[in-house]
Amino acid sequence: MNILVLNCGSSSIKFALFNEEHKIIKGLIERIGGNDAIVNYELPQKNVKYKNVVSIPTHEVGIKILIEELLPQSGIKNVNAVGHRVVHGGDKYSLPVIVNDDVKKDIEECIPMAPLHNPHHLAGINAIENFLPKIPNIAVFDTAFFQTIPIEAAIYPLPYKYYEKYKIKKYGFHGTSHYYLMLKTAEILRKKVEKIKIITCHLGNGSSISAIKYGKSVDTSMGFTPAAGVMMGTRTGDIDPEIVPYIQILEGITPKEASIILNKQSGLFGISGISNDMRKIIDEMKKNFRAELAFKIFCYTVKKYICAYLGILNGVDAIIFSAGIGENSYLVRKEVLKDMDKLGIILDNKSNESCVGKDGIISSRKSKIKVLSIRTDEEVMIAMFTKKLVQKEN
Amino acid sequence: MNILVLNCGSSSIKFALFNEEHKIIKGLIERIGGNDAIVNYELPQKNVKYKNVVSIPTHEVGIKILIEELLPQSGIKNVNAVGHRVVHGGDKYSLPVIVNDDVKKDIEECIPMAPLHNPHHLAGINAIENFLPKIPNIAVFDTAFFQTIPIEAAIYPLPYKYYEKYKIKKYGFHGTSHYYLMLKTAEILRKKVEKIKIITCHLGNGSSISAIKYGKSVDTSMGFTPAAGVMMGTRTGDIDPEIVPYIQILEGITPKEASIILNKQSGLFGISGISNDMRKIIDEMKKNFRAELAFKIFCYTVKKYICAYLGILNGVDAIIFSAGIGENSYLVRKEVLKDMDKLGIILDNKSNESCVGKDGIISSRKSKIKVLSIRTDEEVMIAMFTKKLVQKEN
Repeated sequence: MNILVLNCGSSSIKFALFNEEHKIIKGLIERIGGNDAIVNYELPQKNVKYKNVVSIPTHEVGIKILIEELLPQSGIKNVNAVGHRVVHGGDKYSLPVIVNDDVKKDIEECIPMAPLHNPHHLAGINAIENFLPKIPNIAVFDTAFFQTIPIEAAIYPLPYKYYEKYKIKKYGFHGTSHYYLMLKTAEILRKKVEKIKIITCHLGNGSSISAIKYGKSVDTSMGFTPAAGVMMGTRTGDIDPEIVPYIQILEGITPKEASIILNKQSGLFGISGISNDMRKIIDEMKKNFRAELAFKIFCYTVKKYICAYLGILNGVDAIIFSAGIGENSYLVRKEVLKDMDKLGIILDNKSNESCVGKDGIISSRKSKIKVLSIRTDEEVMIAMFTKKLVQKEN
Repeated sequence: MNILVLNCGSSSIKFALFNEEHKIIKGLIERIGGNDAIVNYELPQKNVKYKNVVSIPTHEVGIKILIEELLPQSGIKNVNAVGHRVVHGGDKYSLPVIVNDDVKKDIEECIPMAPLHNPHHLAGINAIENFLPKIPNIAVFDTAFFQTIPIEAAIYPLPYKYYEKYKIKKYGFHGTSHYYLMLKTAEILRKKVEKIKIITCHLGNGSSISAIKYGKSVDTSMGFTPAAGVMMGTRTGDIDPEIVPYIQILEGITPKEASIILNKQSGLFGISGISNDMRKIIDEMKKNFRAELAFKIFCYTVKKYICAYLGILNGVDAIIFSAGIGENSYLVRKEVLKDMDKLGIILDNKSNESCVGKDGIISSRKSKIKVLSIRTDEEVMIAMFTKKLVQKEN
């Protein structure tokens, strides 16, 4: 079975094509909407890469080019199913689902909660229905994995009417990544997912941390929106909520402008004034006080969540670091987990420093709790879900 | 030395008079501003209580009545010093201080950050200067104890300019209570404060939790304002900050109105729709889903903070419950600390249930971490600080 995985963003299409065994082709179309869209793709098995600049006015045109020009480069002639990343599935979907008109309607209904994502996911689904009308589309929701979070961890202590009226509650995001990390951890530890309690840290430009108990998520740091939880590249994460109206009054800004500050001008970038990229922050740290502060605040907010979930889960088997920062920055991992020996967490400095961009155990043998670094792969996960659903259906 | 302790609120004056050994008289003047102010006071040593309704148009008049009519009831003829609770001392004060014109100016400068408190504290200080011109006034700041919090726990991941321009950072509140609880815990455990790591939970209508290491606060749950941290009677505590502009846009409300929602219409009251009082919530819990939800969310947010601080401190000697809910609700303590045996925390059910409104150890002998219930007393603490400063000065 050949499966195409699509992640349609506001001006981009991320894609990957899988056959039974491998990722055959993967790539990214960026700057959709104009004459200078950038098409990047590679054939990992053949170790070749391509880059083009072309005119791609819409997602539909992008997907047409993908199907007619890019996929044939892989030598694969037919696609059997398409798995779509869908950021928001609301309260309804706790599992991936085959797309039909009702599902499309549900994705549309979640647009107010994911205005930058869900419209483009729908555009991608519609384009596939148009160009490949006979094959199934599967929607894999970022929010699905978090439907098991208990109500007391999901409902905000706001007036209850906001939950009833606007469905304001914790949905969580990065669910597909946390799910993948859970499966991979069980594989590495040679245990069943139903037997382990873990904390998965997806630390990238967007970051989230999840508490997972016996295969089910019981809490996660992102919330109603992806602005909540730990500090991120440009997002605040949790702050005193009263600061929002306070700043609005002082600066005379609109709610929309406040939202832009919280999402685009804060985090590593807001504190350092330099960059939203942890690599640049670390490079500047020794000579720039605010870069050092950004690094420290980031690590402290991650540490607090890990500790909170360690307690909520009454101890864990493993803590997992993943995504851009988590897989690559041994300095972040070291700072986050320092001085935790009394809780059974001891890093092995050598393993930690050498485990960059690969999977491995980085805790000391004396550590009661295992610490792992795992490369996440949402595309593989979406392909797996898609294959499973299509096989079940046939 | 006879010390008067004053806590001047927006329409109230809380007071207590101490001699060398005891609280001789204590009371509360409420509804200042009209003809129907209520004067409550008692003489604990004589076990008598009084209540009057009189006209008290201003704080100044209230303090005149206090000095000329109420204090003489105690038989004490002279006051040697007055200790004032001051909610906000900004970044400047890490200790109590004798009030002079510069201190008054600093308290005034913090009014934007504590508009409902600092103006009334100043009114109280001015009234005492007027009626008792020769005795020292001491300001004891709620924020002082938290000046030791490291910068990475205090600065918010917002654009850095808001810290520089508006001093937006974590100040913390209830500092005098947390300080008192620290001293009392050391006394009960027969250890020096410099030798213990503790988590103090001041859980009342306003609630805050502090991480204290070797006598110094290293983090606290309240933030730039008292709306942050755990769920409270009518305050949200931490929520996804992006919810604030989201609701503003949907409901078309101003920043001021958003602030009222976060501070006055949320928390136990917002979820239950019944009350901001934990006793009423617990009474209704069995027959009302939303009351049960309010109870559960409250306990879950407290649990998360305790666990986070347990990790930040790399283990603790004791966890302390205090204030209205913490001292009295064994159900809250039980729910908060359930399933924590793997972290070394085991409640003794009998001790927990019988320790209501009194000091005691409520953990099991098997518990590595001690759990205590302690009645807090900010007035005693303010009197102690005041005495110490005045003695040092003479």
